[in-house]
Amino acid sequence: MFDYDLLEALASVVRTGSFDRAAKQLHVTPSAISQRVKLLEERVGTVLVVRGQPCEATEAGLRLCQHLEQVALMEGNVRDALPGSADGMGHAVPVRIAINADSLDTWFVNAIAELPDVLFDVVVDDQDHSDEWLRRGEVAGAVTSRSQSIQGCDSKLIGNLRYQATASPVFIEKFFPDGQVTLDALKQAPCMIFDRKDQLQYRWMKQVFGQDFSPPSHWLPSTNAFVKGALAGIGWGMNPELLVADHIASGRLAPLVPGTPFDVPLYWQANRVAGASIAKVSEAVLKAGRAALRATTE
Amino acid sequence: MFDYDLLEALASVVRTGSFDRAAKQLHVTPSAISQRVKLLEERVGTVLVVRGQPCEATEAGLRLCQHLEQVALMEGNVRDALPGSADGMGHAVPVRIAINADSLDTWFVNAIAELPDVLFDVVVDDQDHSDEWLRRGEVAGAVTSRSQSIQGCDSKLIGNLRYQATASPVFIEKFFPDGQVTLDALKQAPCMIFDRKDQLQYRWMKQVFGQDFSPPSHWLPSTNAFVKGALAGIGWGMNPELLVADHIASGRLAPLVPGTPFDVPLYWQANRVAGASIAKVSEAVLKAGRAALRATTE
Repeated sequence: MFDYDLLEALASVVRTGSFDRAAKQLHVTPSAISQRVKLLEERVGTVLVVRGQPCEATEAGLRLCQHLEQVALMEGNVRDALPGSADGMGHAVPVRIAINADSLDTWFVNAIAELPDVLFDVVVDDQDHSDEWLRRGEVAGAVTSRSQSIQGCDSKLIGNLRYQATASPVFIEKFFPDGQVTLDALKQAPCMIFDRKDQLQYRWMKQVFGQDFSPPSHWLPSTNAFVKGALAGIGWGMNPELLVADHIASGRLAPLVPGTPFDVPLYWQANRVAGASIAKVSEAVLKAGRAALRATTE
Repeated sequence: MFDYDLLEALASVVRTGSFDRAAKQLHVTPSAISQRVKLLEERVGTVLVVRGQPCEATEAGLRLCQHLEQVALMEGNVRDALPGSADGMGHAVPVRIAINADSLDTWFVNAIAELPDVLFDVVVDDQDHSDEWLRRGEVAGAVTSRSQSIQGCDSKLIGNLRYQATASPVFIEKFFPDGQVTLDALKQAPCMIFDRKDQLQYRWMKQVFGQDFSPPSHWLPSTNAFVKGALAGIGWGMNPELLVADHIASGRLAPLVPGTPFDVPLYWQANRVAGASIAKVSEAVLKAGRAALRATTE
């Protein structure tokens, strides 16, 4: 068996970014933490933490932290089956989740609020890429656009996140003065793109115009800045209906081409190994997600 | 001299993530793009693009893209000095900026809106780390907490981004029932942390209690989710006063310890090589930033 005192010291350094804070978290001295990490590095025969501001795990260090998190999740199952509160059995480890930015900024906090006893460690990635975190074993669950179950995981449909290609009336008047959004006019109108992974603007163009192309673009990696950017008239972009419905109703924003919503089905995939302790997380995610997203006819 | 047709093909593939879209952007066929990138790779003697969904630059590819962006910025200076609109001189390349998430989600869009003719390529990093992008030459400017000029750059104070350690009244009642936020009680109360680089919660603890430690933590990498999380009572966190002042006034949120704001001075650092063409960006950033942030007495 591994020495889990050593692994916990490592994981705490990586999580808090500092030997001092890890020491405070585990109620030992910083030199005890340092000795434990060093001992673990000697046993494994490789460097596990890059000492810096903050301290970061090496690839091998990350692998050991992942293992610890999985063991902690499995401990959760045992903990629930034990009589009493099992308070003397050590403290809880956060559940690591990968999720798209637009879900995190709209409905996901409601899932966290459902579970006051669970800590969440959220990483953000595009819905077309969040499944990779699960595949690599770095998270226990993911909100993803991939319906097909990843090996060892269960996949459940949450619902459709509906997008509207939106811009301000002033922007629309400037670039489409006759109200017609033609392909040629759209090629001149600045567009907002979240980051290199964001394909939504291209996909909407393809759905509406039968082809995609690269208009002049701002790159703005923030859900909130996308909405603000549309309101300020810097460009058009695919905004979640959840965030712009009020703005559309009040006339501060308008759909670029009325009647062309774009739906992204989102799935919850969770690691089966984590079992019962992820089950209540799954339940909360599905409840909060289904309350906010649109039902699909799938 | 480099062959800039080849470099433009490379940069367009990296920017749009696809050979097809690069072809449409540059009005040539996909096979022409493919040939140009291949030819460039032969000349340089190394792979420049990892073909995938999306296509991504290798380190060498990134270096060439950075060079192209710098040349494009310098062309902007010449362009401005030419008579006429210089429309026949090729198209504009976005200005790449590194910025902290809280600035992007609060005041930065106003700077973009000031300059309808400039495209922005925004990358997000912690204010203690955004200067590294500038140091590596990957951006033309950065909003950073570092006051000291990076080599080749000018540093200008924007102002203080003020934070308040905030939580919901229900959360405060639960974890601090007698209204007193003591060190021991705070160690039990869940806290929100943006990501591994985020030191704000620790710094505030140190300012108020003379020491920092690791309370049970949610990791939530979103400015907006931080505010929502505080409102939903999942934890306390350092929220920009710009986003929570209304919530505090209406009683939906409260400062954890009244009278303990935490100010982060932010600076605008811009690459001197970019010269006049970054000058109008600097002006817009300072104008929008100074209108939103607090003046310092520094």
